[in-house]
This record gives sequence, C-alpha cells and structure tokens, in this order.
Amino acid sequence: MKKKLLNTLIPTLSIGLSISTAFASITIDERTIPTPAGVSSEFAQIIENRTIPAPLPVPANTEEWLTLQTQFDAPGIEVTHKALERSGVTYETKQIAGVDTFLVTPKNIAPEYKGKWLVHIHGGAFVFGGGEVALREAIWVADGLGAQVISIDYRQPPLHPFPAAVDDAVSVWKELIKTQSPDATAIFGTSAGGNLTLATTLKLQELGLPMPGALFAGTPAVDLKETSDSWLTLQGLDPLIQREGTIQGTFDLYAGGEPLDNPLISPIYAEIEEFPPTIFISGTRDLLLSDTVRMHRHLRGANVDTDLHIYDGQSHGDYMNSLLFDMPESDDALNELRNFFNKYINY
Amino acid sequence: MKKKLLNTLIPTLSIGLSISTAFASITIDERTIPTPAGVSSEFAQIIENRTIPAPLPVPANTEEWLTLQTQFDAPGIEVTHKALERSGVTYETKQIAGVDTFLVTPKNIAPEYKGKWLVHIHGGAFVFGGGEVALREAIWVADGLGAQVISIDYRQPPLHPFPAAVDDAVSVWKELIKTQSPDATAIFGTSAGGNLTLATTLKLQELGLPMPGALFAGTPAVDLKETSDSWLTLQGLDPLIQREGTIQGTFDLYAGGEPLDNPLISPIYAEIEEFPPTIFISGTRDLLLSDTVRMHRHLRGANVDTDLHIYDGQSHGDYMNSLLFDMPESDDALNELRNFFNKYINY
Repeated sequence: MKKKLLNTLIPTLSIGLSISTAFASITIDERTIPTPAGVSSEFAQIIENRTIPAPLPVPANTEEWLTLQTQFDAPGIEVTHKALERSGVTYETKQIAGVDTFLVTPKNIAPEYKGKWLVHIHGGAFVFGGGEVALREAIWVADGLGAQVISIDYRQPPLHPFPAAVDDAVSVWKELIKTQSPDATAIFGTSAGGNLTLATTLKLQELGLPMPGALFAGTPAVDLKETSDSWLTLQGLDPLIQREGTIQGTFDLYAGGEPLDNPLISPIYAEIEEFPPTIFISGTRDLLLSDTVRMHRHLRGANVDTDLHIYDGQSHGDYMNSLLFDMPESDDALNELRNFFNKYINY
Repeated sequence: MKKKLLNTLIPTLSIGLSISTAFASITIDERTIPTPAGVSSEFAQIIENRTIPAPLPVPANTEEWLTLQTQFDAPGIEVTHKALERSGVTYETKQIAGVDTFLVTPKNIAPEYKGKWLVHIHGGAFVFGGGEVALREAIWVADGLGAQVISIDYRQPPLHPFPAAVDDAVSVWKELIKTQSPDATAIFGTSAGGNLTLATTLKLQELGLPMPGALFAGTPAVDLKETSDSWLTLQGLDPLIQREGTIQGTFDLYAGGEPLDNPLISPIYAEIEEFPPTIFISGTRDLLLSDTVRMHRHLRGANVDTDLHIYDGQSHGDYMNSLLFDMPESDDALNELRNFFNKYINY
C-alpha cells in the first residue's frame, strides 16, 4: 500500500520501487477526449470540424508512388491558391544553380527584409508537398513577417532519394550567399522541411561553408530510425499525420537504402558542437512533439541559443492555420518568429 | 476521398473541411506504449520499474483528510532522509515572520549564492508535501546549484485553505527583502509549488511589493477550474499524479469555496502586464504539460522573458530524479536552472 501511495500525488519521486509489472510497455485504455480547454474559440472550431483519417497502404512501386504524389498534392494546390488570394502574396519561379525555386514576395516588404531573402524548405514527408504546394508555408511567413522568401522546390523521391533534397538546398544556399550575408538570413521549414532545414545546416557545416544566422525548425522529424514517444502516445489525436502506413514508407523511400541514423537523414544523431540559433515550434497534440523536444535538448546540450514554443492542443503544424483562417495562436507564433529573427538576423 | 487525403500526410492544413463527425470529443483506442526512444538508459530503467496506481477516493471529512495527509507524507519523509544523506545538504528549522521554514544549506555554497537565499515553495497538490517532505526539491536545488534555500512550510488544508499558503509566502518574502535585494533572488517550486510561486508573485504585484528577479515554475498547476488537455490525453502515462479522485478533491479543498478562476488560485486567469523572467520545465508524459505550456504562452503574450524546457518521456516532476538517482536529464535541468538564474539574478 505504501508503495502505491508513494506513486500517487506526491509530485516528485516515486522511483526505486521495483514494482513487478514492467511499465516498459504500458497499455492505455480507450478514452474520450473533449476539445482542449486552453485554445482560442477560433482554433476550437477548426478542431471540431475535422476527423482522423484512416492510414493508407504503402505504395508498392515507383508508379504507385508517383500516382499517390499527384493525388496528395492536388488539394494542397487549392490551399496555395486560396492563401495567395487571401494574403496578396505573389511569386515567380526561378532556377537557381540549376534548382527549381519560387521567389515569394509579400504585399508589403518590412524594412528589415528589404534587399534580403529568407530560405524555405517545404515539408510533406519528403515525398509530397512539392511544386506549388510548397508555397503554403512560404506564403505564411512572407505575409506574416513581410519577408521575401526563396522556397526550394527540391528533387524528391521516388525518383530522387537522399541526398538530392539536401544537395539542392546547399546549391541554392551557395548561390544566395554570393550576394547576401549568410549571418543576416535564416533557413526554415516544418516537418520534413524542419528535418531538411537542420540537415542542410549540418551539411553546410560539413562542407565548411558559412551557416545561416538563424533557423526555424517547425515540429521537425529528426529521428527517422526510432519511433519517438509522441508518435505512439498521441496516436489518434493528430489528424494531420500518422506514422502507420504511408509515412514509414516515405522515410524508407527517402533514405533510399542509406542507414536511417545517418545524421543528414536523422539530425538527432548529429554530433553538435556549434550550430545557429534555432527556434522550435510544436503542439501538445503533435505527433512530432517528442522529435521536437528531443532536438531542442540536443542543441541545448551544446549550449546553442534556442527558443521552444509549444501550443496547447495543436496537432502537426497547426500553428500555420492563419494561412487560411483567423487564429490568434498563429499570430502569436508569427510574433515569436519575428522576435527571434529580429534578434539574430535583423540586428 | 479528396477530403481524407488532405487530412493525411500533408503536414499543414486540413482545416475547413467540415466533415460530419465532430472531433470535439474523440475516442482513442486502447494502445500499448513502449519505453520512450529518446531517454537516457538511467531514466529508462526508472520508468520500467514503476506502475500506474489506481485512483484513491476523495476523503469525506477533515479527519479523513488529515489521516490521508499523514499516510501520503510518510514515504516522502524517507525520500528526504535519503536525499540528505546522498547530497550532504543540511537544514535547520526557523520561524520567519511567524511562518515555519527550513533553512537549507548545501555542502558547498557556490560563490554566486554566498550571502543570499533562494525561496522554495513545495508541491504536493496543496494538501500534501509539508513538513520534512517539503525538503525534497529544496535539497535538489540547493545541492545542484550550490545555493542556500529557504523552504516555506506553509499552512495547508484541510485546516488552512486559500489564501493561507500565499499569505505565508508573502510574509516570508517581506521579511527576506529587508536584508536581501529582491532582484537578486528567485522563488521556485514544482506542481502546486509552481502554482504558489506564480500566485505569490501575483500577490506581491497586487500589494505593490518588489517582485523577485526570476521564477522557476516547474510543471505548474495553473488551471484548477478547467481540466487542461494533457490531464486527459496523457492519462495512464503518468504514474506520479492523476486528476480523478483525490486531486480534484484537493483543488476544491484548497480553494475553500473561493471561485477556482480566482487568479491567485488559477494563475492562468491573471491579467499579466509585467512579470519576472520565468523558466518552465515539464515533460511530454506529464499530466501538467498543458498547464505548463498554457502559462508559458500567457507570459509570452505579455512579452515576459521566459525559457521553456520539455523533456521527452518524462512524467510529473521527473526532472528531479537525481535527488536519489543518477540521471543525465536531471543534471541537464539543473544546468538550465543555473544558466537562467545566472542570467537574471546572479549578474
């Protein structure tokens, strides 16, 4: 009885009790979860109008992957078009160092972003989110910060596995820093784009090239080898991604036979000595919460300047919802980004 | 079909889809969760040797509360004794302004803490954790930072509900700042102690008294009125507290009839204009994760200097485990505390 009491309510130490049943694999009962108490009414309404989709099977061959890619990206294109209309952001396509990019310009360029470009690497589980779909986050940041953004439409699997995406980002970066101070710009991206933001920076370091002055790693996938805890603990609470089925398939497809613990594939395995200041954003219902906080701690272990912002009740990438809808939490996230970039690249 | 596709894998926007089934109350299936991938082997071993206790009924009257208090606190006293032995920390009791306190002294006082005291307010769901049990976190910080700590053994329910605890902390503070610069010290506490750290600071502000130079709010309970999301989403994953049963009873007992949204009872309802720099620590399996990140955002909304540190796989207050066991994540948390206090109170 004492053992159980020590386990309950005394909010620090219940350890060293050696109770027989291993906690290692714990079974959680079915439960019903209401809308989070701590979110805006705008976000509550968004949450209440969506469902958790069923997992999709992993495509069996290149042709099936290409078909799925087209299917997946179709609705994202609609989102991009709506967001362009809503924000007044414009873009043009340009090849930079042989890589396809979008040059994204806000309606009003803020004084601190006159004459410079931020670099965006889109998400989409490495395989999806290319072409015009990539523009979603670029539009969100361009409009929110008044910044000009180069969004890299990097080569993707199934035709171009790792390291094509990282190589493309490095090529664009090398070209950009011919005319712009690397210290005065940032690279950013969400999910797989957060991964590629970190991986590209690691690659620049490896090559001895100048690194950016700051990074924004939005709820990044940093461990493609192990299944971080929140993929499992929050399963069923995040309508925006799922690891079962397609996602694990995309990770393997992206790696293309390279070991998944290669630090340029899973940045959590990188040895960090120095690294640019990095802002992380995620949510308590985001399946990549664990990946995010693990990478945050990994950088803090090397004393890197970081900021961590976690939004209650948000699922994967929900902070970006103001791309289409009014949402105070989105404005708040943009405010944190603005502050962070002003501190580290716009001084 | 398109709607479902938009909901899957494209890691940003699946909103505005108005699918019929309300997400408001979502049912999550039973699932089995292994040890988190992102924790140290030391912490993995701690996790694997504990179980989730069954909820206890709410005591029916004062006498039953007092009995439960004694039962609960007994094992905590053992922890304190072991921790004193392990750390070489010593303490004496002293009444300050009529309030019982412990003066806690580390084996070696660090230069930056010579001649000053940090202020500790213990946790334990407002009702438990008093007397020698209070010393646990005070020992952890005293030993970890080399700091002298005044730990307040505040009056507790069932005999002394709100605002006795806050009043006691204010009394000690008023006495302390007669001989020590308020800017050069910090108040800290975990769980209910995190709540009281925030509430005491709000009360000081209300009284026009000088505020501390920094706060450490460890995984604080900030919303006693609404059930924050992680109490529900992480239920079954945190062996260290649970809201069902006793805890909700302690909240009501502590409030003693005052509305639970009184900002001195639930600091999330405070209007914040300025506030001391605050460091928050919590974990991804901590039932108070949502409370923690909600308060972090609430302070950030007023542009308060803050630090947020979230440890993967940690349940309620797990960061403090080095009180009894070697655990790298604990050393890391102490390192963050040291850095934060050095920046804001030891300059």
